[in-house]
Amino acid sequence: MAMLINGQPGEQITALDRGLAYGDGIYRTIEIRHGQPRLWAWQYRRLAADASRLRLPVPDAALLLDEIGQLADGVVQGVAKVVLTRGVGARGYAMPADCQPTRMVSVSAWAGYPPERARDGVNVRWCDTRLSCQPLLAGIKHLNRLENVLARSEWSDPDMHEGLLLDQRGLLIEATMSNVYLVQGQRILTPRLDQNGVQGMLRDWLFAQAPQLGYQLEEADLGPAQLWQAEQVFLSNSLIGLWPVATLAGQALPQGHPCCLQLQALLAQQD
Amino acid sequence: MAMLINGQPGEQITALDRGLAYGDGIYRTIEIRHGQPRLWAWQYRRLAADASRLRLPVPDAALLLDEIGQLADGVVQGVAKVVLTRGVGARGYAMPADCQPTRMVSVSAWAGYPPERARDGVNVRWCDTRLSCQPLLAGIKHLNRLENVLARSEWSDPDMHEGLLLDQRGLLIEATMSNVYLVQGQRILTPRLDQNGVQGMLRDWLFAQAPQLGYQLEEADLGPAQLWQAEQVFLSNSLIGLWPVATLAGQALPQGHPCCLQLQALLAQQD
Repeated sequence: MAMLINGQPGEQITALDRGLAYGDGIYRTIEIRHGQPRLWAWQYRRLAADASRLRLPVPDAALLLDEIGQLADGVVQGVAKVVLTRGVGARGYAMPADCQPTRMVSVSAWAGYPPERARDGVNVRWCDTRLSCQPLLAGIKHLNRLENVLARSEWSDPDMHEGLLLDQRGLLIEATMSNVYLVQGQRILTPRLDQNGVQGMLRDWLFAQAPQLGYQLEEADLGPAQLWQAEQVFLSNSLIGLWPVATLAGQALPQGHPCCLQLQALLAQQD
Repeated sequence: MAMLINGQPGEQITALDRGLAYGDGIYRTIEIRHGQPRLWAWQYRRLAADASRLRLPVPDAALLLDEIGQLADGVVQGVAKVVLTRGVGARGYAMPADCQPTRMVSVSAWAGYPPERARDGVNVRWCDTRLSCQPLLAGIKHLNRLENVLARSEWSDPDMHEGLLLDQRGLLIEATMSNVYLVQGQRILTPRLDQNGVQGMLRDWLFAQAPQLGYQLEEADLGPAQLWQAEQVFLSNSLIGLWPVATLAGQALPQGHPCCLQLQALLAQQD
């Protein structure tokens, strides 16, 4: 793994950084292909939106792209991670008046998921962990991720690939590391993320791209029962791409709708 | 400031630590007096309880005490901070099977609050930020503190000393960095922390010590209106001690009940 911290090679930060003290920052995980970050415009747009929501200075797109490019040079397939924190401040929660953010850019080897998951579908379960509701943080890929850690700790079976999360209201929100979609004819429904959840870059991309395949992607309040009424359920995440869901809690879900396959084909064409 | 990381002098950690990536850890802030951590037994009990709740290995009390003692040697008054994270793991939320926690112990100069606040009382305001409800994390002093950061960012007036927080249900929970108490005769009421909030060490101490002064400390569901019916409102935190509240949102609150003064006197005798 190679890393730049505020542009300098290294992988150490001060333990006084607010990213550690309070989780006061954001991040993105980005696929690298042939030395370049995939879907960069979508990634950057989301990074910038999240930074603005937390009143973090938005780093320059060209600067980030240059730093990723330095580390990704010659990398055929890999994973970049960008972490942006509010840097070091005086003790206490108050945001420093003169914020000197910490910018961490790293590129590591492609950890890879078996490609048959995208083809054959994945097994998912319900998590007991229920997401809290906090509109001020909803959708942001921030560094306060203990709920995801607790949810992911509920299982260790390697044949169970993801866990679905309800929130305190009983609504379906997401899976531990991916967004979720329910296909019904030409409609695709995905949970509203105005109370909780992480707005993945591919979710934005799907909103923009689904119509050209004749699909209408819409936000909805979705309960767990609606998963069984869908013609297909699939997941998205910048590293996994799109995964159809084969089984939920050990029961087969409907398969065979072409939607996920069509979207996968469209996604495969993207740089 | 002096720091030990896993017992070694230094103040740098790897940017791959889960404390940074996910806020996957806990901390305590501890007053140092004459080279020793004050109310250590209470601090350690809470640290150990929080670690257990997050399934972090609980560090040995003697080890922590030794490390604090090394750094605090000769310090008349100072601030120690202990941060404990789940260390470095593979990518992803899953807890590493073989957890190698990161233990950071630091001692810095006494930042100090003006002593007249404890005597004359403080000015508090309402925060617009509402705490979310998450029983799995409630009470724990974990590293996911963005709600506190947002709440504390709501004001910058140095004469406003704390901000009170309601939760999504509209119940009073705490202030941004302190617990809150309402005195009514010989009863002291404090918010239940089973859905959110941070269980401060002094809150535990008050539960144990208040009876010897003839006070009964009880948890309750408290709404904002009850602050105006209390004979006294006060705050607790390991560095501020106990602060009576003089004004709320610019209006004077009832003063003159001896409770806070009596508890301050008892606290002053503690090592």
